[in-house]
Amino acid sequence: MTPSDTKPIIALTMGDPAGVGPELCVRALNDTTLSNEVTLVVIGDTEVLKAAAVKTDQSFSAPTMDVPDWSGASFQQPSVVNVGSITMGDFKPGTINARTGKAGYDYVNTAIDAALAGAVSAISTTPLNKEAMRMGGINFPGHTEIFASRTEASRSCMMQYSEEITCTFVTVHVGYHEVPNLLTKERIVEVMDLTHEGLERIRGSKPKMVVCGLNPHAGENGLFGNREEENIIQPAIDEGRAKGYDIEGPLPPDTAFLPWKRKATDAFICMYHDQGHIPVKALAFDCAVNTTLGLPIIRTSVDHGTALDIAWTGKADSGSLYCAIRLAAKMSQQ
Amino acid sequence: MTPSDTKPIIALTMGDPAGVGPELCVRALNDTTLSNEVTLVVIGDTEVLKAAAVKTDQSFSAPTMDVPDWSGASFQQPSVVNVGSITMGDFKPGTINARTGKAGYDYVNTAIDAALAGAVSAISTTPLNKEAMRMGGINFPGHTEIFASRTEASRSCMMQYSEEITCTFVTVHVGYHEVPNLLTKERIVEVMDLTHEGLERIRGSKPKMVVCGLNPHAGENGLFGNREEENIIQPAIDEGRAKGYDIEGPLPPDTAFLPWKRKATDAFICMYHDQGHIPVKALAFDCAVNTTLGLPIIRTSVDHGTALDIAWTGKADSGSLYCAIRLAAKMSQQ
Repeated sequence: MTPSDTKPIIALTMGDPAGVGPELCVRALNDTTLSNEVTLVVIGDTEVLKAAAVKTDQSFSAPTMDVPDWSGASFQQPSVVNVGSITMGDFKPGTINARTGKAGYDYVNTAIDAALAGAVSAISTTPLNKEAMRMGGINFPGHTEIFASRTEASRSCMMQYSEEITCTFVTVHVGYHEVPNLLTKERIVEVMDLTHEGLERIRGSKPKMVVCGLNPHAGENGLFGNREEENIIQPAIDEGRAKGYDIEGPLPPDTAFLPWKRKATDAFICMYHDQGHIPVKALAFDCAVNTTLGLPIIRTSVDHGTALDIAWTGKADSGSLYCAIRLAAKMSQQ
Repeated sequence: MTPSDTKPIIALTMGDPAGVGPELCVRALNDTTLSNEVTLVVIGDTEVLKAAAVKTDQSFSAPTMDVPDWSGASFQQPSVVNVGSITMGDFKPGTINARTGKAGYDYVNTAIDAALAGAVSAISTTPLNKEAMRMGGINFPGHTEIFASRTEASRSCMMQYSEEITCTFVTVHVGYHEVPNLLTKERIVEVMDLTHEGLERIRGSKPKMVVCGLNPHAGENGLFGNREEENIIQPAIDEGRAKGYDIEGPLPPDTAFLPWKRKATDAFICMYHDQGHIPVKALAFDCAVNTTLGLPIIRTSVDHGTALDIAWTGKADSGSLYCAIRLAAKMSQQ
């Protein structure tokens, strides 16, 4: 089957079973406002979802099925696909465990199968726990890298999207010290290309982009750093301008995010994880969506982690997840 | 003489003559609300202040004197101390020039003489231009380092202070790549000590401090980086706790600044310049004050640069400068 003409079908992965993913999936399945906009298909374990529903005082009535032959699958209502990766006896909610790390990874893989087969319009993901995954023998640092690998994407980048501030990333899940050696003109131009494509798709118009420097004060004309701004970032900007992009930079990373600059900018191209994640979380903590640009399938994610300290208590906020589902729906319709 | 019992005497340096400093100084001298709270003594060049007043449609009537014998100096009203470093024929407003770099440095040095002699209660500074200073043969990267050197402070650190968010810095004006090698347990404990002292002085109570990690997700238990969190930052936190400090960390740098965390935190101890400057400028762009902790004299500064693009046009906002002057007054009275 193909995704419905009227409502996008969104595969929602259950995330690490010990985290906040299961309760958020149950809440989303029960949300009638959401089900008027999209048809949700939760990819996880039914036993875990039922237990999380009981533990967090929610009802659970969605129809559930085993993993189908995706080429023939059809979804008319909010449903659960039961992957069968884990049982409640295998783990304790709120704790890090090799089994939950592996299970969270299985759900993502199953959702990718569904999307590659065209059975769903897009994927939204709830959080994985990287340490649990590593204990479970899965060595991907995050969703972005799993999707890039499984879809054999030749180029991709992370985007943190919100109405207040949107950032894309030249490097992401690497140690602080590794960043300078990973910056190349080619990679920065690639992220510019992906940002331009992605934002044009979402906004329907040519985006205004700002590129951040690497060093304090963007190096202040060579005073700080190894002239990464002059030798790597500026040549990338020159190439982007030659392609017709509306692009400014390299700007000092601290003044790039001043309020009037945010209003005039559709996306900030950031050199490293915290350069963009700090302002996104400080300014748009409850409505930022994490998405991967450059994939053959659409994928969005909540902007928070497994939150093991509040997992299975019902305290997790759905704001970021609902924003992620709605952005996935929007991107799949344009 | 000694600073007045009722109103603190604040030395206000004119900054780089080509920048926004001169017009901001004239505005501050003319502000009657401010002159009810403090007695301002602008340290600069009278000819430049008069020219900036004319250019930005302001009056100029403050009494002016040559650099006095500070041990006998007395200030009863807003005044100007004429250092005689530069004339209007020597430079063009809004441009980088070796002469203005040297002049800005001279004003700071003169203000330090005044403070060390006890003729003023504190110093507030308007912006220097680091590139102009370098062209002028002055190789300090910023005010913080000039004050530390002139006062022979054995330890000091930068603090960015605002009601919304306050950050102190383990490293500041160095290239991105230099940071990991500059992190030591001893330096982090030193910054904790200075932050604790400084905040207790300003707030009158024991501060709640948060220490940020270096790597994305604070290293996520060794997944990213060289375990700087486990090997350097955590031992520093342990030592701080042994001293009785209320201290949490190392926190992931992006979630450290979430709104509820900011409300519960008096100061964030940051590992590098942009880790703290990005959230301070994004959240408190018009009221953040830069101060140097650990000096024998009190010094505060605006949180912006020379803004050469709008210098001498009257467009510069006084918000940050007035906050800086008021924080200097507060710190000098406690």
